Amino acid sequence: MPSVFPTDSVGLVTPLTWHFGEPLTLACGRDLVDYQLVYETYGELNAARSNAVLICHALSGNHHAAGFHSEDDRKPGWWDSCIGPGKAIDTNRFFVVSLNNLGGCNGSTGPASINPATGKPFGADFPVVTVEDWVNSQARLADALGIQRWAAVVGGSLGGMQALQWSISYPERVAHCVAIASAPKLSAQNIAFNEVARQAILSDPEFHGGHFREQGVIPKRGLMLARMVGHITYLSDDAMGQKFGRGLKSEKLNYDFHSVEFQVESYLRYQGEEFSGRFDANTYLLMTKALDYFDPAAAHDGDLVRTLENAKADFCVISFTTDWRFSPARSREIVDALVAAGKNVSYLEVEAAQGHDAFLIPIPRYLHAFRSYMNRIEI
Amino acid sequence: MPSVFPTDSVGLVTPLTWHFGEPLTLACGRDLVDYQLVYETYGELNAARSNAVLICHALSGNHHAAGFHSEDDRKPGWWDSCIGPGKAIDTNRFFVVSLNNLGGCNGSTGPASINPATGKPFGADFPVVTVEDWVNSQARLADALGIQRWAAVVGGSLGGMQALQWSISYPERVAHCVAIASAPKLSAQNIAFNEVARQAILSDPEFHGGHFREQGVIPKRGLMLARMVGHITYLSDDAMGQKFGRGLKSEKLNYDFHSVEFQVESYLRYQGEEFSGRFDANTYLLMTKALDYFDPAAAHDGDLVRTLENAKADFCVISFTTDWRFSPARSREIVDALVAAGKNVSYLEVEAAQGHDAFLIPIPRYLHAFRSYMNRIEI
Repeated sequence: MPSVFPTDSVGLVTPLTWHFGEPLTLACGRDLVDYQLVYETYGELNAARSNAVLICHALSGNHHAAGFHSEDDRKPGWWDSCIGPGKAIDTNRFFVVSLNNLGGCNGSTGPASINPATGKPFGADFPVVTVEDWVNSQARLADALGIQRWAAVVGGSLGGMQALQWSISYPERVAHCVAIASAPKLSAQNIAFNEVARQAILSDPEFHGGHFREQGVIPKRGLMLARMVGHITYLSDDAMGQKFGRGLKSEKLNYDFHSVEFQVESYLRYQGEEFSGRFDANTYLLMTKALDYFDPAAAHDGDLVRTLENAKADFCVISFTTDWRFSPARSREIVDALVAAGKNVSYLEVEAAQGHDAFLIPIPRYLHAFRSYMNRIEI
Repeated sequence: MPSVFPTDSVGLVTPLTWHFGEPLTLACGRDLVDYQLVYETYGELNAARSNAVLICHALSGNHHAAGFHSEDDRKPGWWDSCIGPGKAIDTNRFFVVSLNNLGGCNGSTGPASINPATGKPFGADFPVVTVEDWVNSQARLADALGIQRWAAVVGGSLGGMQALQWSISYPERVAHCVAIASAPKLSAQNIAFNEVARQAILSDPEFHGGHFREQGVIPKRGLMLARMVGHITYLSDDAMGQKFGRGLKSEKLNYDFHSVEFQVESYLRYQGEEFSGRFDANTYLLMTKALDYFDPAAAHDGDLVRTLENAKADFCVISFTTDWRFSPARSREIVDALVAAGKNVSYLEVEAAQGHDAFLIPIPRYLHAFRSYMNRIEI
């Protein structure tokens, strides 16, 4: 039977679940006594178990990075442009593992899961998780799958932070670390945007202190606002200008507050609406907190060079010219520290108009460089 | 009796009110049958009535630009750094007029005023006002005060847009136009930020469709979020970094959603709180709409050169290097169009770390250049 999927697609994929019975101690001091991670795999693990690549997702991502969940699926996974046969992360060579992080809302244990202590959903009682916690939980998943060492840990944005943390927390277990459109820590402005998003959710009367599920409601308005703010930071001013400019929705101005006058307003409202229907508000809070707290150099008096000194991986760092969320300067901080720490590092700054979102977009020079790097990895 | 005020202050000032009985037709097609403007003046109008300077305020500004309202006043007006004896706008030379715009919430007719048609506050029924409407209402104030021609119309940000509009709408009535940290129109990103602020207010359950006064409440959460978003765009990433960095509120992380972990969070919450207690939500909506709609070139197929061709003023345009709300590139669009239209224009790009807020801050090079320009104005 001929496949209905493109030939460079990993095709039909089915999420898997691994249950962990051993407690995980988190940075906040609390234990998760019992948890599960949902994940997908693409490609085949080789006999030497040396070709495994871990994909770490960003704020609103999940385990479904490539392929399709059914023949009727209209959209593939979120990084399908980069994962598949012959693509940058070539599934003819690599065994790819992609998971939904702890605290997520797509199947891994998170705020919507039942808290065994109460028999009700965790809601806001789900512990705050950090990038380090995620990496620890991912290491257990690696153990479970029999992967001692990743050929590469790869991620964009918050995913890149996890890749970096892997190289620091588990130096022996990472051959290559690929951090795309990422940063060594958030700036005050980054934290400020997260704080606005959080306050939008927390101040929504339907948030109910994080226990909205028990009330049968969702803090839709708060999530919508949070996503709208986020979207502005994902696109460059140029990209927004090219995409929408001052284009009007209709020929005549309405001169009121409720009508949509400009196309960019309708885009943002749509993005916010759509997101608020599919994402969990507590997860959104957790993800922004994980971003805020990420600062691996803090344990070394802010010295990023010393922080990276024990890493054993080779590094690939990629940034995009118009990314103002995590600008090329932020990637260069990582590169400079790696060079000073005597590590092998490849750095590429890609000309791209799309801003932070560029890491998800099939930009030829980006895909070419990314594939070249991945193809040189020995397995 | 010796003054308790600094010698370079205009000292004690008292707001004045002018009532206009003649209807004003607005761009939206509606009439304001009856309205008042509150304003302050500093300095003396000369016999030739040739030394008057109009100050136009920005989004959250008002008529109180300089001096003090009482001896106990701890803070002077919002532009006290630039207005006073010997200052950039020298009240020993100039007669300065500063008003609260129509739709405002500091004494001029606005959403909190009584709608004569209903006997209740206008609330959301107050008509949407544009920069052109404001300039028309300011022209009537000029008539009332016997000022045929302004020595200068001056403003920063949205105030700069009013100054530009004056030179277009009333070319004979403006000798000099000073537009600081301004833009010829909003970008898609600018509109997007305004849209988030508006949605924050509109979606606050206490907004009650704009008739919150009748319910005895205010949409505090929405206003707070709107102000927080605004504040991020007023400060540069650098300024935020220098001011707050990743500074922690307390030594230990709290790992929850409600605690303030980073100083920048507490700054934003404070700014939002304070603002939500003193500003009107409907006025905020009106101001953002006036910004969105401002696009004088639209009437000339987007051709800014043609738009400015009939202007008779000389121009001074000032921008600040780290302003990312209205970047120097936006000021240069104005300058380039003025040059192409054959106008006299002075342009200064000031090195300043403070972002958009810089126009309110006494930066020596800025004050010096601003004063030099103003001092050369013949009266």
